[in-house]
Amino acid sequence: MALPHATSGQVIDVRPLGDKMTEAVSHALFKAEQLELIRLVLPRGKGMPEHAVQGAVTIQCLEGSIEVHAHQKTQRLQAGELVYLAGGEPHAVQAVDNASVLLTILLAHNGNHGFAGNALTQSEMAHRAS
Amino acid sequence: MALPHATSGQVIDVRPLGDKMTEAVSHALFKAEQLELIRLVLPRGKGMPEHAVQGAVTIQCLEGSIEVHAHQKTQRLQAGELVYLAGGEPHAVQAVDNASVLLTILLAHNGNHGFAGNALTQSEMAHRAS
Repeated sequence: MALPHATSGQVIDVRPLGDKMTEAVSHALFKAEQLELIRLVLPRGKGMPEHAVQGAVTIQCLEGSIEVHAHQKTQRLQAGELVYLAGGEPHAVQAVDNASVLLTILLAHNGNHGFAGNALTQSEMAHRAS
Repeated sequence: MALPHATSGQVIDVRPLGDKMTEAVSHALFKAEQLELIRLVLPRGKGMPEHAVQGAVTIQCLEGSIEVHAHQKTQRLQAGELVYLAGGEPHAVQAVDNASVLLTILLAHNGNHGFAGNALTQSEMAHRAS
């Protein structure tokens, strides 16, 4: 994926989308050498199937609510809650209500996601999430 | 600092503190092998003096507003905005209004912040921020 690298000092908007959520789709906010930020836009009932990435991730619910399944349990996150997952931990995400989510993904040193397990490219992820 | 490592799957509350902000202080939310999350609580006018850390950081304004100085410019962040800074980039933060801030710090491989420049330990940082 040829996402341009972010400029250090760049300000990123992660405010709730509110009424604009119905027009929005999941998209990368930026990618840098060490990390990538993605906003997932998940209509109610939609999500990401189980997958794993090499680096650690945080999944922050920005609005609505989601369920995160990992470590043989399912936890519900409301807006303003986040979950940390160690690298390689398989996880799935599903929207309980229309939701947007900030994913922070630590990248492997080759600058790739280092997808492990059921690997998904970002475009596959956006496709499945939409 | 002997902050316990987070458990993968742990849910973290980063909702605005609102009225509780006056009783709160800056604190680590968790530390894992690859990253550390800190909530800074900054009364109006307070902040962190210029410093640099080895790894990349994101600075997300959770409530109130802050000014971030880096790259020879000062940018104001409102709640729901974040800024990405490359590793080693000197930066300072100051609260314009009472604010709380989510710092995501990518750690060097030795598990330390790898503070560079005007190094601050977390306790120094919390002290200066309060």
